[in-house]
Amino acid sequence: MKIAQTPKPPYYAVIFTSEAADLDESYHKMSDLMVSLAERQDGYLGLESSRTDIGITVSYWRDLDCIMKWKENTKHRSAQQLGRERWYENYTIRICRVEREYSK
Amino acid sequence: MKIAQTPKPPYYAVIFTSEAADLDESYHKMSDLMVSLAERQDGYLGLESSRTDIGITVSYWRDLDCIMKWKENTKHRSAQQLGRERWYENYTIRICRVEREYSK
Repeated sequence: MKIAQTPKPPYYAVIFTSEAADLDESYHKMSDLMVSLAERQDGYLGLESSRTDIGITVSYWRDLDCIMKWKENTKHRSAQQLGRERWYENYTIRICRVEREYSK
Repeated sequence: MKIAQTPKPPYYAVIFTSEAADLDESYHKMSDLMVSLAERQDGYLGLESSRTDIGITVSYWRDLDCIMKWKENTKHRSAQQLGRERWYENYTIRICRVEREYSK
């Protein structure tokens, strides 16, 4: 996992923060599958993810329409339902407009 | 660490993603100090942080002016300099306007 190489702002970020209930093997398989599907979605710009006691996954997108299309993706919807029911105790999703970016 | 309890959008997020060079004990002390200072800044709304091979820290703020004041905080500026010189191989900072939020 590296820092995502994103274009000049503005673009969009989805910050997904979770407190996990039970991240079993089925979770990790699904997580890998969702990343590979997201990468093929129109407007996908990159993804960053880490987990200690909470998990933070940030995905980057060209615009809000691309985010909504990914949210409605059929396979992604099944994964979202499993996430709510099985894997996540709590989560928060924040949809953000990235206005400035700077790097070392 | 829990999911940050943030107000109804809009508000702002600073996504700090890093690839670490050497996170020694001095880093962890400084990190704890910066969190305690940030918590006392005007407009601070919360913070989420995790690290595996990359580190992701997201801090939440009332508005851009609060973010700029925290960036210019004298002790924070010293920490930023040490971060650039000693602890971080690469990092990216993204300043975002949070437009929507939903939770389980």
